[in-house]
Amino acid sequence: MADALRIGIAGLGTVGASLVRILTERRETLATTCGRPIKVVAVTARDRAKDRGIALADDIWFADAGTLAAQAEMDVFVELMGGAGDPAYSAVKTALARGIHVVTANKALLAAHGIELAGIAEEHGALLNYEAAVAGGIPVIKALRESMTGNTIARVYGIMNGTCNYILTKMEKEGLSFEACLKEAQRLGYAEADPAFDIEGNDTAHKLSILTSLAFGTAIAADDIYLEGITNISIEDIQAASDLGYRIKLLGVAQRTDSGGIEQRVHPTMVPFDSVIAQVDGVTNAVAIESDILGELLMVGPGAGGNATASAVLGDIADIAKSRPGAQHVPAFGRPVAALIPYTRAQIQSHEGGYFIRLKVIDRAGVFASVASRMAENGISLESIMQHSKHTQETGKPQTIILVTHATAEHSVRDAVAAIKGEGYLVGEPQVIRIERPKDY
Amino acid sequence: MADALRIGIAGLGTVGASLVRILTERRETLATTCGRPIKVVAVTARDRAKDRGIALADDIWFADAGTLAAQAEMDVFVELMGGAGDPAYSAVKTALARGIHVVTANKALLAAHGIELAGIAEEHGALLNYEAAVAGGIPVIKALRESMTGNTIARVYGIMNGTCNYILTKMEKEGLSFEACLKEAQRLGYAEADPAFDIEGNDTAHKLSILTSLAFGTAIAADDIYLEGITNISIEDIQAASDLGYRIKLLGVAQRTDSGGIEQRVHPTMVPFDSVIAQVDGVTNAVAIESDILGELLMVGPGAGGNATASAVLGDIADIAKSRPGAQHVPAFGRPVAALIPYTRAQIQSHEGGYFIRLKVIDRAGVFASVASRMAENGISLESIMQHSKHTQETGKPQTIILVTHATAEHSVRDAVAAIKGEGYLVGEPQVIRIERPKDY
Repeated sequence: MADALRIGIAGLGTVGASLVRILTERRETLATTCGRPIKVVAVTARDRAKDRGIALADDIWFADAGTLAAQAEMDVFVELMGGAGDPAYSAVKTALARGIHVVTANKALLAAHGIELAGIAEEHGALLNYEAAVAGGIPVIKALRESMTGNTIARVYGIMNGTCNYILTKMEKEGLSFEACLKEAQRLGYAEADPAFDIEGNDTAHKLSILTSLAFGTAIAADDIYLEGITNISIEDIQAASDLGYRIKLLGVAQRTDSGGIEQRVHPTMVPFDSVIAQVDGVTNAVAIESDILGELLMVGPGAGGNATASAVLGDIADIAKSRPGAQHVPAFGRPVAALIPYTRAQIQSHEGGYFIRLKVIDRAGVFASVASRMAENGISLESIMQHSKHTQETGKPQTIILVTHATAEHSVRDAVAAIKGEGYLVGEPQVIRIERPKDY
Repeated sequence: MADALRIGIAGLGTVGASLVRILTERRETLATTCGRPIKVVAVTARDRAKDRGIALADDIWFADAGTLAAQAEMDVFVELMGGAGDPAYSAVKTALARGIHVVTANKALLAAHGIELAGIAEEHGALLNYEAAVAGGIPVIKALRESMTGNTIARVYGIMNGTCNYILTKMEKEGLSFEACLKEAQRLGYAEADPAFDIEGNDTAHKLSILTSLAFGTAIAADDIYLEGITNISIEDIQAASDLGYRIKLLGVAQRTDSGGIEQRVHPTMVPFDSVIAQVDGVTNAVAIESDILGELLMVGPGAGGNATASAVLGDIADIAKSRPGAQHVPAFGRPVAALIPYTRAQIQSHEGGYFIRLKVIDRAGVFASVASRMAENGISLESIMQHSKHTQETGKPQTIILVTHATAEHSVRDAVAAIKGEGYLVGEPQVIRIERPKDY
C-alpha cells in the first residue's frame, strides 16, 4: 500500500470534529477505498481545551492556522475556519504556495479570492477542492467541474440556503408569519442569532458566484449580483401563491443572456407546485443545471450540517488520496485561470414565467381599471388580475389585488409599478415576485 | 500543453456519432478544460458506409472492435457497441490487458462481467469508467464512487428506465391503457420493437446490480434480483393509487437488511404524490442514495438519448485526460476487487410503507368480511379497506376491493393472498403493489 496521505486541519468546529471522527472510525475502509491510509498529522483550532469528543495527540497541535499552513509536513491542508479574510485567506495562500493541496468548505473565501487562489494552486501544481462550499453534501462542484466537461451551460439555479427554505416551508405549511418561523429556525439552530446574512440572500449569492464561474468559465463576481432576500415575504404572498398553484422559494439563478453577459440574481421566486424543485422542503438544498449536451440535471440533498459537510470534505480528500501525489490536475474553476473570461454583468431582462404582483389598494371605484391600464400602457400582457383575500372584502377597508403577468421585460414591470404608485391609491409597498418555470421533468 | 489523449471508439450508433461530433466541434474548449487535446485516432463500426453526419479520416478505421482493441495506438478505448457478450466483452478485455483505459456505456457487459473486467483493469493499471451505463446523464457513478467515499450506504433506489416511466406517466395523465401507451412509446422511439427487456424490468435490474456493487462493496449479482415488470399494471391500479395519494413508478431498490444480506428488487412501487420522486415524469430518470454521513442525495436527469449518454462518456474521458497518463487509480467498483465482499441475497422482508392490494371479487355477501379475516389471520394490520371503482357498483357484477396495509412482512402478504385465492370468490388475479416512502425532503 502507498504511503499515508497526511492531512492538516485548521478549524475544529462541527465540521472539523465530524471529519476527524470519520477519519478515525473508518480508517480501514478508507485505506481500502483510497488505496492508502489517510492520517491527520496536524490540527489547529481557536480553543485547544474544548471537549470535541475526539482524541487528538498533543504533538499534532499547531499554535495557529498560519503556522500550520507554513510548517506542517502534510500533503493536504483542510481549511474549515470560514470567513473571507484572515486567518483563512493567508493560511490557504501559504499552503498552496508550498504546493500543498487545499480542501476547503469556505464559500466566503472563494467568493472573495477564489480566482487568485486558483492561480496560486495552478502555479504550484496543487489542487484546490471545495465541494463543501456550495450546497453542502450535494456534489454540484464535481458535476460542473468534471461530469459536465464539454457542456455549454445555459442556466444554473437552486435552493442553496437551508435557513430560508426552512422558513418559507414552515410559513406555508403552518400559516405562520415570517418572524415566528425565523424564531423557530433560530431555536432549532437552523438560523444564526444574527440571521441577516442568510435571510437577505448574501449566503446564496456567495454560493451562486462560485457556480457561475464554474458554469460559464468567468471570473467570480460575488459583489455583482442582484439581491433580494425573503424578509418582506408575507403569509399573504405565500397563500396567494398557493391559490395560484405556486410555491415561493429563495432561488439563486445564473444564466447567460442574449447580450452575451451573465445574469446573476438571488430573489424569492414562485415555482409551479408540480415542479420537482417546489417539493424541496425544509433545510434541504437543490441545484439544477441546464446544459446543451447533457440536458437538465437536478440534485437534491442536505445543504448544511456537520456530517453532510464533512462528507463533501472527505470526498475531496479521497480524490486526492486516489491520485498518486501531484499526479492529477483538475483546474479549480474548470479551466486554467488564464483561460477564464471576464465577467460581464447582464441586467435582468425578462421572465419567461412572468411576474406576480400584489397590491393593497384603498376601496375606491376605478382602481381595478387604473391598475389594468397602467399595465397595458407598459406593454404588459396579463394572465390574470383578481381581487384576493377573504379577510378584506368589507367595503371601505383596503382591498388586495393580485396580478399575474405573461413573460415580460423587467423594466416594463418596474415602470408599470412606479406608475401605479403615482396614482395615490396604494396602501403600503407593492409586492413583486418573479415566476420561474423550471424544466418539466 | 501535454500530448493529445488518443481515443479509439468501437460503435458509432447514436451515442458514438454524438461523441465524435462533440469532440470535433468543441476541440478547443476541451483542450483548455482538460489541459490537453483529445484526438480520435481509431474507430470501428458495423457499417462503415453509413452516413452519420460526421467526418472520419479513412486511415483511422479498423476492421472490427477486436482488431482495434488489440492494435490501435491509443490511451483510451471507448466501447459503445453494447451487449454482454462479444465483440464488446473480448475487445474490452484486450484493451485493459494492454493497460489501456476503458470507457463504456455498456450496462449489460458490466452486469455480466464487471468484476472480472475491474480485476483486469487493476492488474494492468488501467481505469474502467462507465458513468453512462447507469441512468444516462446522471452522474450517479461518480457520486457513489468518488463523492461518497467513506459513507456507509443504507439504500439506493431509483427510476432507471425511461421507457417504463414514460408509459406509467402517460397512463396516469391521459387515462390510457398500458398497451396504448406502449404503442405510443414505440412510435416516439422510447421503446424498442421488442420492448420486453425494458418493460419486464431487466434493464433496470442490470443498472441496479452495478449500483449495488458500488454502494455496498459487493460482487455484482445481476441474476439474483427480484423482478417484476409493469406489464400487469392496469389503468385501474393507476387510478386507485391516485385516489389514495400515490403514483406508481417502476423502481429498482437495493438495500442492506438486518440479516446482513442485500435485498435487490425491481418492481412497480407506489410512492406518495408529494415525494420528489413522484414528480419525475416521462423518460426522465432519478436515483436516490441514502447514506449515514452525507444523508439522502437525489439526482434527477435524462436517463437515455444520444447526447445525454455522450455527455457522460465525455465526462469519463475528460477525467482521464485531466490525469497525467497512468497517474490516477480509482478502483472500478469503489474498492480493489480483492476487497469486494461476496453478495448475499436477502429475501424481501417487509415494507415500511405497506402494500396496496386490489382484488376483483364476485358480488356476494360476506366477501368483505372474509378478506378482512384472512388478512387478520396473517397478522396484517390494515390502513384501509374499501370498495372501489365507480363502474362496477351494480349488483351482480364483480366488485373491486382495495386494501392498503400498514408495514408488514412480505411472506404474510403472500400467505394472506394465497388464502384469499383459496376462498373461490376472486375474479382474475389479485394485484399486489408495494408502497415505498422516500425520505421526505
